[in-house]
Amino acid sequence: MKLRIKKLGIRTGGILIAVMNKEDAKLMDLRGLDRIKIIKGKIFETVIVDIDEHGDVVKKGEIGVFHDIFDKINLKNHEIVETIPTRRPFSIAFIKKKLDGCKLNQKELAQIVWDIVHNKLDDIELTYFVSSCYTRSMDMDEIVWMTKEMTSHGDILTFKKKPIVDLHCIGGVAGNRTTPIVVPILAAAGYTVPKTASRSITSPSGTADTMETITNVAISAKEMKKIVEKVGACIVWGGALNLAPADDKIIKVEKPLMIDAESQLLASIMAKKLSVSATHLLIDIPAGNGAKLTRINEATNLKEEFEELAKRVHMKIKVMITDGEEPIGNGIGPALEMRDILWVLKNDKRGPSDLKEKSLNMAAEIFDMLGKKDGKQLAKKILESGKAYEKFMEIVEAQGRRHELNIGTFEYNVVAAKTGKLIHLDNRAISKITRIAGSPEDKGAGLYLYKHVGDNVKKGEKIATLYSDNETKLKFAVEAHKSLDGFVVQ
Amino acid sequence: MKLRIKKLGIRTGGILIAVMNKEDAKLMDLRGLDRIKIIKGKIFETVIVDIDEHGDVVKKGEIGVFHDIFDKINLKNHEIVETIPTRRPFSIAFIKKKLDGCKLNQKELAQIVWDIVHNKLDDIELTYFVSSCYTRSMDMDEIVWMTKEMTSHGDILTFKKKPIVDLHCIGGVAGNRTTPIVVPILAAAGYTVPKTASRSITSPSGTADTMETITNVAISAKEMKKIVEKVGACIVWGGALNLAPADDKIIKVEKPLMIDAESQLLASIMAKKLSVSATHLLIDIPAGNGAKLTRINEATNLKEEFEELAKRVHMKIKVMITDGEEPIGNGIGPALEMRDILWVLKNDKRGPSDLKEKSLNMAAEIFDMLGKKDGKQLAKKILESGKAYEKFMEIVEAQGRRHELNIGTFEYNVVAAKTGKLIHLDNRAISKITRIAGSPEDKGAGLYLYKHVGDNVKKGEKIATLYSDNETKLKFAVEAHKSLDGFVVQ
Repeated sequence: MKLRIKKLGIRTGGILIAVMNKEDAKLMDLRGLDRIKIIKGKIFETVIVDIDEHGDVVKKGEIGVFHDIFDKINLKNHEIVETIPTRRPFSIAFIKKKLDGCKLNQKELAQIVWDIVHNKLDDIELTYFVSSCYTRSMDMDEIVWMTKEMTSHGDILTFKKKPIVDLHCIGGVAGNRTTPIVVPILAAAGYTVPKTASRSITSPSGTADTMETITNVAISAKEMKKIVEKVGACIVWGGALNLAPADDKIIKVEKPLMIDAESQLLASIMAKKLSVSATHLLIDIPAGNGAKLTRINEATNLKEEFEELAKRVHMKIKVMITDGEEPIGNGIGPALEMRDILWVLKNDKRGPSDLKEKSLNMAAEIFDMLGKKDGKQLAKKILESGKAYEKFMEIVEAQGRRHELNIGTFEYNVVAAKTGKLIHLDNRAISKITRIAGSPEDKGAGLYLYKHVGDNVKKGEKIATLYSDNETKLKFAVEAHKSLDGFVVQ
Repeated sequence: MKLRIKKLGIRTGGILIAVMNKEDAKLMDLRGLDRIKIIKGKIFETVIVDIDEHGDVVKKGEIGVFHDIFDKINLKNHEIVETIPTRRPFSIAFIKKKLDGCKLNQKELAQIVWDIVHNKLDDIELTYFVSSCYTRSMDMDEIVWMTKEMTSHGDILTFKKKPIVDLHCIGGVAGNRTTPIVVPILAAAGYTVPKTASRSITSPSGTADTMETITNVAISAKEMKKIVEKVGACIVWGGALNLAPADDKIIKVEKPLMIDAESQLLASIMAKKLSVSATHLLIDIPAGNGAKLTRINEATNLKEEFEELAKRVHMKIKVMITDGEEPIGNGIGPALEMRDILWVLKNDKRGPSDLKEKSLNMAAEIFDMLGKKDGKQLAKKILESGKAYEKFMEIVEAQGRRHELNIGTFEYNVVAAKTGKLIHLDNRAISKITRIAGSPEDKGAGLYLYKHVGDNVKKGEKIATLYSDNETKLKFAVEAHKSLDGFVVQ
């Protein structure tokens, strides 16, 4: 059926949807979530049908098209296209199969991943998939296939110099800031470290946000390869690359219910590591109150699954279970975290010793895995000689050094309301306050802690300073602080 | 935060969503699917936040509002409203609980049903609920609570004259057309029968569509009550009433994967029967190839569940398992089905005997349940004396008699391509053809069968006639017929 394109001024955020008038849909016997092909000359795209039941958006003879499809097949507003009904994706039957508790084979998972990557599944269909993986879980075969398919439906980067080392920390705020210290230690020892990091979603800052205070992190795959070949390492934002792209789309439907399917977590992390051709991998699982995993046996199970999966995809792995009860370092927010990192790298006395210690332990584990003796001593030597700092600045320069580190100029001091002991720092409250103050987009926003859990405080004594680049945002953040009980003294 | 209303010219189909600019969302630390209250004077409404990442729809300081909310709190375009962040619905935690395999209590189910009815859950969240009921299933306690909550979050109709009789057929095309024959037989015997029926979604016609050929079916609860009090019965469209309204919203997310959670099916049917205060209920479960349930033990299980549920909600029930392999009657499509019905009611020889027989059996089962002796004889007497026809016309008049029965004027004969036996009539193909021909909206569209499965046919002999009210639609339908193999002769 020939229809006239009507451009709709809204994005769907990826999913390919076209809106049809009720009468036209009837003539093709189409219902919502059926599929049609939109054909323009030799180009076509299969899209999901949404039906305008009221006819107030799309008139008979028109087809409403969102930005996402519009750009994809280069449509012009008001032009006539051909449309034909087509079958729903095969993956819908496979999702149903998984929902019914059956094991999927590699071909079926390949089809599902392809359809996810190419925006062929609606939110409802994708939610059923995530839900099925969560309630029915996947066995190790399925996890291996899922990992491989997520990897192959994206770019794969290769590097000349082996071994290729990577590291990853599973959730929790704590420990994220070790990466910019560990990576240059490893690179200074001559290893290839193509590190991709994420931006924060709910926490005050992600490793990519923190790195962005002093260098460019939104880097293409081609540039990333050039940088790593030149200086041996990088720390870039994974989101600007096309590595295992199914992952982001799956995370989008996991978020509303905070679903965290273990099979999905394993496949997603390992796919990203396979995408950079890592040969050796260190996984840090922080456990304890406030971390993602609170019980030690959960952490041990996950450790074993990682080890099995790594074996099946031929990657060397070491999994550390670390204490996840306490944040590491004093700065929270991009620039404040980077200041801590630079102090440690420059061997400045103000560098938090817990941050230094954990970074050295991580580097040591990797050296061990690589067969180096006295890994901790080696890591310490590289850090204290200034070679790690030198390598870090090489990485920063190669990615495109940005600007000086600026801490927010608007300040507010959080003081103790009474004398006693600081017994709790609430992660959620701290995230909320620093995010309203502007973190992580406003690099100078954040919180600097003078006191940690267990410290004694006197009434009126400073516990922390809240920073912002903007007076209004600071005002909103202080209001939020006053309504939350983030710093508990007893 | 004060924001300016921007009316968006699209409907969401119910879900209450408002679109915010990225920067404003940041200032309130809001992410997609978070909730805010929109406050106008003393009225407020909690809505789901969608974030415009590109800023091309909603500018800073604006809030984009769809029709659904706009009308609900009587907003004016460009007016300023107050907005404050609020917690996500508690039901999200309960859905997660069910997804984790735990049993829900009545309060938790009540909250979920309330949020569904009031459009407080996004498609993704609702899909997780449906998925959890499907994969984790519900026990009889949960089904009873769900039934009661679905009933109480909707209108409940009461009638003076008891017993109140109702009947329901589970899916499959076959047998649906018995309702307009059984209802007047029961009403003629003096029973109250407040029958609600559905419109077709994928089949050529639903009972409501068929009734609509000669009478009004979109009737309010108030009118329905008046009609039933006057003539003892009605056959109206359930969709125009507010009975167990959660059901339609749940069905919407079941459709894409054709999920048919048994617990949901039970709760949905029984809630609608409780909503009309039924005291006696007949359930017809057609089983066999082509029906919803293909195996007899599935049908038996469902029968037992219905019996248990009815007992728990204090309703008398009788469940028949019938042969669902073959359609009943010759006409397919609203007017053609109504013609069969009227022939049976008028004791015209052209009335299909299978339709008459099944209707009498159903009426007999209900008479038995009500303690009447020789139910079948009684039903036959009422039908053959013309009293059922008389009562049927009373119902038709009371609902608002519409127009004469018109069969489509454009015809196409389906003839046998070769001599042999008709071995298969494909339900899906027949639905597609009749729907493209205009069914069920165009009342005259449909198919009339001269031959049934097992009949011998000669090359060129008529198997069926395809009817349409519109030449173009007939053309499209004939094209579809030629591409499908709906009538198999061997």
